[in-house]
Amino acid sequence: MSRTEISTLGEFGLIDRLTAGIKPANASTACGIGDDCAVLHYPDKEVLVTTDLLLEGVHFDLTYVPLKHLGYKAVMVNLSDVCAMNGTPRQITVSLGISKRFSVEDIEQLYAGMRLACEHAHVDIVGGDTTSSLTGLTISITAIGEADKDAVCYRSGARETDLICVTGNLGAAYAGLQLLEREKAVLQGTTKDVQPDFAGREYILQRQLMPEARLDVIQALAAAGIRPTAMMDISDGLSSELLHICRQSHVGCRLYEEHIPLDYQTAAMAEELNMNVITFALNGGEDYELLFTVPLSDYERVQDIKDVRIVGHITKPELGSMLVTRDGTEMELQAQGFTAFAPQLDE
Amino acid sequence: MSRTEISTLGEFGLIDRLTAGIKPANASTACGIGDDCAVLHYPDKEVLVTTDLLLEGVHFDLTYVPLKHLGYKAVMVNLSDVCAMNGTPRQITVSLGISKRFSVEDIEQLYAGMRLACEHAHVDIVGGDTTSSLTGLTISITAIGEADKDAVCYRSGARETDLICVTGNLGAAYAGLQLLEREKAVLQGTTKDVQPDFAGREYILQRQLMPEARLDVIQALAAAGIRPTAMMDISDGLSSELLHICRQSHVGCRLYEEHIPLDYQTAAMAEELNMNVITFALNGGEDYELLFTVPLSDYERVQDIKDVRIVGHITKPELGSMLVTRDGTEMELQAQGFTAFAPQLDE
Repeated sequence: MSRTEISTLGEFGLIDRLTAGIKPANASTACGIGDDCAVLHYPDKEVLVTTDLLLEGVHFDLTYVPLKHLGYKAVMVNLSDVCAMNGTPRQITVSLGISKRFSVEDIEQLYAGMRLACEHAHVDIVGGDTTSSLTGLTISITAIGEADKDAVCYRSGARETDLICVTGNLGAAYAGLQLLEREKAVLQGTTKDVQPDFAGREYILQRQLMPEARLDVIQALAAAGIRPTAMMDISDGLSSELLHICRQSHVGCRLYEEHIPLDYQTAAMAEELNMNVITFALNGGEDYELLFTVPLSDYERVQDIKDVRIVGHITKPELGSMLVTRDGTEMELQAQGFTAFAPQLDE
Repeated sequence: MSRTEISTLGEFGLIDRLTAGIKPANASTACGIGDDCAVLHYPDKEVLVTTDLLLEGVHFDLTYVPLKHLGYKAVMVNLSDVCAMNGTPRQITVSLGISKRFSVEDIEQLYAGMRLACEHAHVDIVGGDTTSSLTGLTISITAIGEADKDAVCYRSGARETDLICVTGNLGAAYAGLQLLEREKAVLQGTTKDVQPDFAGREYILQRQLMPEARLDVIQALAAAGIRPTAMMDISDGLSSELLHICRQSHVGCRLYEEHIPLDYQTAAMAEELNMNVITFALNGGEDYELLFTVPLSDYERVQDIKDVRIVGHITKPELGSMLVTRDGTEMELQAQGFTAFAPQLDE
């Protein structure tokens, strides 16, 4: 693959090359890239805004994450935050800090992943900033979306007797991370160019490298006429996120271990590492599934939605926030969340 | 001054401490910090969005920039982009990447500058992201603002015979940067703790360290019933910005050297460095003044606005984009813009 230095294009040349052919897909995008601001048009909706900062060495490791996957994931995790408000993402801005290690072709790969995620979700790239960096790659993305005023779901709306629901299955992204970390350690101990064997583990790798924001579930909930009372996306593990909802809603909860959805590959990976798979689901990060609560009266309607599982219920606050294990024991939920912050600053 | 390690607070503890007491000042801020997204309400306006990424060592040098000033400036440069669309800024999100070099008190200083800028401009901090960094400080800010649909000013609207206007005076921030860079070089050559003498140069330092977004001019234009045909803020030097307007509007221009507003301290600094002060104004960066065009029929009304100067006029494209010097010579304008990108990647 050829290598073009970014200095041969300059900032504007690079931006032109990355954004060539971008056409707005949303009516709310009045003006995209090319002026001091993007101009958006939201006359009848609430506007949702979220932002994430991703730093090389802290949030991603390019020794095992391909740039295209990184771009895809960086976008999806922001779109997931818009879904978590029961909203539909419409626009993103992308800021990049790029060190000399990266060629134009590298950044094109990264951007290709971002554009692919945007295509999948019908989202427009409307602006950003591109600059040099002294060390590594920095990615900052802001996502903008919309929701009807009475559809917006906050963390604070869960009420006693509400059902606790999750989408998909949990712990898979963390299992994928464990696999990649282990293979990296193995490879660093050898001089041979051994390709790691990922056969039969494609699903957990996919979940780690290319997560999907659950726009499909947001649409299914709307189609079923269900408005969750509280909602979040699961980025730091189910335990930590459920505790956020309980704290902000001033309620307690019962979460049933036996109902937590797990994939076979996640369980197999945990077993191989002599770890408890429930720990992956409770404290592993980056699943980007949705956690939400619905009134008990929605029991049947929510059961009919594909890929949604009821995992517990909301209680009075004085009953605490408890995990009920398979043998019926109640244990207090712990927020041992996976965060990019704690391991770095605490070490 | 005491030093508290960020690890003693953790991410959420730090955010709580930084954002304590923040109360939304704008009706458009339906929900700020504390959920997956901020929720904004813009039923009757266009929504303006802009973002900037600032990296230590590339965009700022903490050996001579106090953290509080850095925070103030980082916010103002984004608000300036909203002004540049003829809009009013309303919200920002703030993402920070923080290395272990920084204490809680350091980040409080930075945030105090950000909050001060927000207070001055009646802007709400509605969200962000806080994470650790392996190297230095990273700041990513997104600003959101509003404008009436028919008030939004793009770069592409300048028409033949329009007057070219600028606010304030130009080159002062670059003069301030030169002063700081020189004093840094002097101090690095000595072991004594000499305080540099900035007496009589406070204005250019202020312009470099604490620029102001020209909200006052946006308000004055609206009060005078003037809608600029094109507008930008001057972040990369007048020359580069005027060429953007000419290119995107498909027009030419005549810019008159004798009308370019300069401050005495800027001129004095240029003379001391044996440089042409007009170069500071044309190619120096970070003034964050506004550059705009108005129809010839607004000549008298625009002259009455405080701190606005007419510096030239728009022509047919075939007449080119020219600087007319004091002796009447016409020279082609050059986009030797000050950018954080070029010097880093080209070196």
